[in-house]
Amino acid sequence: MVAADNLKPTPKQATFDLITYLKERQQLCEEALEQTIPVRYPEKIYEAMRYSLLAGGKRLRPILCLATCEMTGGTIEMAMPTACALEMIHTMSLIHDDLPAMDNDDYRRGKLTNHKVYGEDVAILAGDGLLAYAFEYIAAHTKNVPPERVLQVVAHLGRAVGAAGLVGGQVVDLESEGKSDTSLETLNFIHNHKTGALLKACIVCGGVLAGASEKDLQRLSNYAQNIGLAFQIIDDVLDITATQEQLGKTAGKDQQAKKVTYPSLWGIEESRRQAQKLIEAACAELEPFGKAAEPLVALAHFITSRNH
Amino acid sequence: MVAADNLKPTPKQATFDLITYLKERQQLCEEALEQTIPVRYPEKIYEAMRYSLLAGGKRLRPILCLATCEMTGGTIEMAMPTACALEMIHTMSLIHDDLPAMDNDDYRRGKLTNHKVYGEDVAILAGDGLLAYAFEYIAAHTKNVPPERVLQVVAHLGRAVGAAGLVGGQVVDLESEGKSDTSLETLNFIHNHKTGALLKACIVCGGVLAGASEKDLQRLSNYAQNIGLAFQIIDDVLDITATQEQLGKTAGKDQQAKKVTYPSLWGIEESRRQAQKLIEAACAELEPFGKAAEPLVALAHFITSRNH
Repeated sequence: MVAADNLKPTPKQATFDLITYLKERQQLCEEALEQTIPVRYPEKIYEAMRYSLLAGGKRLRPILCLATCEMTGGTIEMAMPTACALEMIHTMSLIHDDLPAMDNDDYRRGKLTNHKVYGEDVAILAGDGLLAYAFEYIAAHTKNVPPERVLQVVAHLGRAVGAAGLVGGQVVDLESEGKSDTSLETLNFIHNHKTGALLKACIVCGGVLAGASEKDLQRLSNYAQNIGLAFQIIDDVLDITATQEQLGKTAGKDQQAKKVTYPSLWGIEESRRQAQKLIEAACAELEPFGKAAEPLVALAHFITSRNH
Repeated sequence: MVAADNLKPTPKQATFDLITYLKERQQLCEEALEQTIPVRYPEKIYEAMRYSLLAGGKRLRPILCLATCEMTGGTIEMAMPTACALEMIHTMSLIHDDLPAMDNDDYRRGKLTNHKVYGEDVAILAGDGLLAYAFEYIAAHTKNVPPERVLQVVAHLGRAVGAAGLVGGQVVDLESEGKSDTSLETLNFIHNHKTGALLKACIVCGGVLAGASEKDLQRLSNYAQNIGLAFQIIDDVLDITATQEQLGKTAGKDQQAKKVTYPSLWGIEESRRQAQKLIEAACAELEPFGKAAEPLVALAHFITSRNH
């Protein structure tokens, strides 16, 4: 659930009711996700996949995909299978990231992590199952979109998850753990790949499904790049300033792991300022879309104002 | 490499030189696979992916895909990206299957397993990277095939890997470990999913890419189902009769793990007879294709005559 009372709209968004928008879209996504994985034999693997996929969360990735598709002239229906697939991929990355061989986390979104409930073997397989199903789901369920666009989405998503994206970012992240001399360049690489690549795919794929022009896709890509990095800077800040209850996961992990973060390089206040600058640059990219860009502009500002 | 001296052609295949065919196709696949993953920063993940993908093996899956595409009127070029993707997916399943939390294997194809060389964290990510890249590779590199067929291939493959296929088979396999009362029905489920689903995808996708009719796709599916099960029966037999050197992996693992296998249910001789029956049923499905089916008929017989 979005914590409405923690979100004071800034003057810029006074005309757009983001809280209601997010609630409605989150609800739509929950309903769609609920339908994606029916439980059948062998029940355990379907239950493990559902356990993490339906564990709540802000559903920012599918919401960004739907919003971009609508802004560029498409419909919610065209983008919903891709939106669900994005959440499956995000969930798979969390399940594998939490494994003992990786970050070794016991809690996620306030619940026990997948391997703590189902065992490591099933958690690895649940991640694999979600990743494979994401691609199947897009290919089999996308309607009223020319097949060449759907194939482009498959290619974008595959790239966003693989070694050129999320997986590559995680490898560099693992390598830099415990090192206190990680450069800003490396830190940017980690986040542009570990978090940024999938966020960018959400936004670009929304445009691809709607048939956006190359020029518009470039604007979307710039918007995504900027909010992706801002998102990570704020994540690092929240790891220091928020409580475990607010985060729904272990707080202060970065400091314990002696990880270099944006606040450790810049301090908390400067980190917040840098994030704000990125958000403004992101929103400038959307000016040509006029009023249709309101949800994505508001979403960008939401990223820096969130407290969990 | 195919061990030529262990392969005596049976009278049925006297007219078709399977050994030369396999050598040529294996070489084609090796060359294509070698090109799929260039090494770039962060090198470690690309090297880990290449280490297992290029570790040799018979390349049966890609060869089956190419052969089916050609038999049904397509070309090698149309099927090669899918063939490479099939080997990426197969490799990912081996990397994850070998992990300590799963089968905990130290050797595979005569080499140290991925996690023994690169660590568990990188091995998990290398598998994820290969799985995501497989879909990207098909979507981005398939040429001269209508996009709706390529999308069908993506859907087939996703299904073959996920909970409805390979992953589902592995979960039941893990659950039945150490149980001596596993039924023939459960054993068939495990193998139809763990090995059969991907083999079927190789063969059906070859036909889909070539634009085969629904009727022909059904024949291909039946052929695949039969050789898939025969393949597994022979695998179980070889686990007992072959040496570690011949297998390139730990031998006798099934007996050590007290796993129910086909030979443990039927004995070795009856297992071989059942496999032979399945191969004959498989080949009968290909009769309408006439001489064009020679490679797939010979490949089916190869499965029961192999000794590693």
